[in-house]
Amino acid sequence: MRDRPPVQPAQERWDSWMETPLTVMALVYLAAYAVRILGHDLAGSLRDLCLALTYAAWAVFIVDYAVRVRLSGLGLLRFVRHHFLDTVVVILPLLRPLRIVSVYDRVQRRRDQPRLTLYARVMAYAGLTASLLGFAGALTVYHFEYTAPGATIRTFGDSVWWACATLATVGYGDVTPVTPMGRLTAVGMMGVGLALLGAVTGSFSSWLIQAFTRDDEKEDGKRPPGDSPGAS
Amino acid sequence: MRDRPPVQPAQERWDSWMETPLTVMALVYLAAYAVRILGHDLAGSLRDLCLALTYAAWAVFIVDYAVRVRLSGLGLLRFVRHHFLDTVVVILPLLRPLRIVSVYDRVQRRRDQPRLTLYARVMAYAGLTASLLGFAGALTVYHFEYTAPGATIRTFGDSVWWACATLATVGYGDVTPVTPMGRLTAVGMMGVGLALLGAVTGSFSSWLIQAFTRDDEKEDGKRPPGDSPGAS
Amino acid sequence: MRDRPPVQPAQERWDSWMETPLTVMALVYLAAYAVRILGHDLAGSLRDLCLALTYAAWAVFIVDYAVRVRLSGLGLLRFVRHHFLDTVVVILPLLRPLRIVSVYDRVQRRRDQPRLTLYARVMAYAGLTASLLGFAGALTVYHFEYTAPGATIRTFGDSVWWACATLATVGYGDVTPVTPMGRLTAVGMMGVGLALLGAVTGSFSSWLIQAFTRDDEKEDGKRPPGDSPGAS
Amino acid sequence: MRDRPPVQPAQERWDSWMETPLTVMALVYLAAYAVRILGHDLAGSLRDLCLALTYAAWAVFIVDYAVRVRLSGLGLLRFVRHHFLDTVVVILPLLRPLRIVSVYDRVQRRRDQPRLTLYARVMAYAGLTASLLGFAGALTVYHFEYTAPGATIRTFGDSVWWACATLATVGYGDVTPVTPMGRLTAVGMMGVGLALLGAVTGSFSSWLIQAFTRDDEKEDGKRPPGDSPGAS
Repeated sequence: MRDRPPVQPAQERWDSWMETPLTVMALVYLAAYAVRILGHDLAGSLRDLCLALTYAAWAVFIVDYAVRVRLSGLGLLRFVRHHFLDTVVVILPLLRPLRIVSVYDRVQRRRDQPRLTLYARVMAYAGLTASLLGFAGALTVYHFEYTAPGATIRTFGDSVWWACATLATVGYGDVTPVTPMGRLTAVGMMGVGLALLGAVTGSFSSWLIQAFTRDDEKEDGKRPPGDSPGAS
Repeated sequence: MRDRPPVQPAQERWDSWMETPLTVMALVYLAAYAVRILGHDLAGSLRDLCLALTYAAWAVFIVDYAVRVRLSGLGLLRFVRHHFLDTVVVILPLLRPLRIVSVYDRVQRRRDQPRLTLYARVMAYAGLTASLLGFAGALTVYHFEYTAPGATIRTFGDSVWWACATLATVGYGDVTPVTPMGRLTAVGMMGVGLALLGAVTGSFSSWLIQAFTRDDEKEDGKRPPGDSPGAS
Repeated sequence: MRDRPPVQPAQERWDSWMETPLTVMALVYLAAYAVRILGHDLAGSLRDLCLALTYAAWAVFIVDYAVRVRLSGLGLLRFVRHHFLDTVVVILPLLRPLRIVSVYDRVQRRRDQPRLTLYARVMAYAGLTASLLGFAGALTVYHFEYTAPGATIRTFGDSVWWACATLATVGYGDVTPVTPMGRLTAVGMMGVGLALLGAVTGSFSSWLIQAFTRDDEKEDGKRPPGDSPGAS
Repeated sequence: MRDRPPVQPAQERWDSWMETPLTVMALVYLAAYAVRILGHDLAGSLRDLCLALTYAAWAVFIVDYAVRVRLSGLGLLRFVRHHFLDTVVVILPLLRPLRIVSVYDRVQRRRDQPRLTLYARVMAYAGLTASLLGFAGALTVYHFEYTAPGATIRTFGDSVWWACATLATVGYGDVTPVTPMGRLTAVGMMGVGLALLGAVTGSFSSWLIQAFTRDDEKEDGKRPPGDSPGAS
């Protein structure tokens, strides 16, 4: 973060101006994508509308990205290097829901609530990210699989079940993708699963270390001075 | 914890007065639930008794919850926000055994034993939680699965075996739930498995860090002052 | 460790006197057990010899345990509480190889080698424990499974393959135990797998924390005093 | 590292002189190995060329190893003990790509870029190692499996899919190796998977601990002196 070049005022204005539209567009994109994939029995016109909405949202993302590249005053290449995640999200807009996670954080802050502890925040992030990416991944895998010959993922329920087993790194293997694109999506989800596991384990571990340190200090405080330490 | 509003004396009296009945009721609930599900060959009257006991225990939990909402002086909504786990446990009383874990902790303290170290306590908690929730989960999944067409979980033994493989995030997939409700329960158990893994890994990690620090200090202590540190 | 009552001189003498015989007996036990299980085509007399050796080793373990209970001056119950692992190992002598791990540690120390770092030692321990328990577990599961109807673990190779997949918490499920006793052993191995994962992750985590701290300090040291810290 | 005997000047010269050839040779080895295994429909002469290249690269590795043993002034045995990884890599040149990881690190340093943080570096290492070893492992397993009777890994795509599921410790088990050599390779990859998981979890954990500490300090700084700390 600290390595990034200073943010221009125009850039900041743009960011705050676009925040709500981008969040709405991310939700519209996800919803339209979901309806188009799950509603394969819907009328063609409705599905076309969804497709149009998907492309419209994508166009908004690309315009926003272009404006931000421009405002940053960096070239495209340097911008890509400094905003790697933003670039990924423009190319694969299905990962866009990740944006909602950071918005959720800002909303939390604004409401002036007693800030959640870091651990609770990491857990909330990990849970929200896993849910959103799990849903998007289950949709994509379902899209590629349900018509494939020899597929075991035949309903969206199967796909969600498979996604949960993958994200938890349990991996039963009773239903698994068989198409190349489904498997590619799956590999991405395994990565998310590893990160999720890392986040859960990591926050637990650091919480424990902190709890232990505090415990030690409390005990030291309680003990009257001059008292010889007994069996602790 | 520290964010919670101060506890009223009446509330404290109620909590200490209800502790034993609630623990007993939690065990009764779990036992009656287990008998009703596993004993599908028992006489109908016995199974009805179990059902009645289950509902009776649940009623006790709800009354206790209502009284505590009342005594807290907070509205229902604020109470829910401050006692999220309690609320979950009232709605899904099968998670109630978690209460036993905290009682076990209090009993340990009362017996004035040399307190277990934090690591041993985390391990004991994680083990107890995993066992209780694993048992409750295996029961629920067995209940939904054993009559389902195409089910692979046909006996309670299968269900326990599946539960262990899930909690350890091994996930062989030789037996897996096929019904929507069974899979929903399974997803909850995967979450428990992830947390269990996090607890084990986290305590190991923090134990190591502590051991290492102590090791370093011991070595520093042994070394005569003024001695130049060699290859450590 | 610190909670244990002081060790008597007689007890210490006994421990050092029995160290070599107990290690030899543990190896004899494991070897005899392995030969008896894997060599089901051997002559009956050889297999009987192995059985006799197994029982003889077990007898030595029990006698050693009894002597140590006596010498400790504690009652049986208090001894069990303070030496929980020793007690488990007397009842399930197949876990006895764990003893070799601690002997290996002592041998390392005696040879006056530059002591391995804590991380390397944890890794070596985890690896040795996983190998020994994995081998013992694969033997036991093979013993229960290879004659079971509908078994997928038919050769010792299958059993070892299954044990590796279990210890790494990968769990393919292409071969899995089907007998109750095989599955019980498997659950124990999953626990070992979880602990192994915790050890690997934990040492990596604490190594990183330490490396980072050292890195920071080195950088602080290199920087000339009064120099304003730039982008790090 | 610190335990190693001091590096001779001649040794250092040799190391810097051989760096580029060895990296090129490692890539040649991997490429020739991949072409030979994947191109089983290629003309025999091309495959023979690949085989020759493979052996040539291996010969270079062995010569380099011999020279370094000589220059170190240690005997072979002591050299093996101090350079264990180098020895493994000479015997199993398919692990050689690991060398690329350390070269990548040196290149990064030379370009005088603002150094990546430790966490980013660990992640980059873990990712690069997992990719290279995953690719090499998928090749080897494919080589042993695709002609085996009853194999489920029939195409290289299957093998890559299996490798990803193994490295993430998900382990679906829809495709698994069935030959002894394939399974042996698989066990090695499980170990890599465990280490990868440990690296991800460990860096997350230590990052969190650091972030938390910094967070705390920032808050302490903001608070005016003499202010009594309220609910944090």
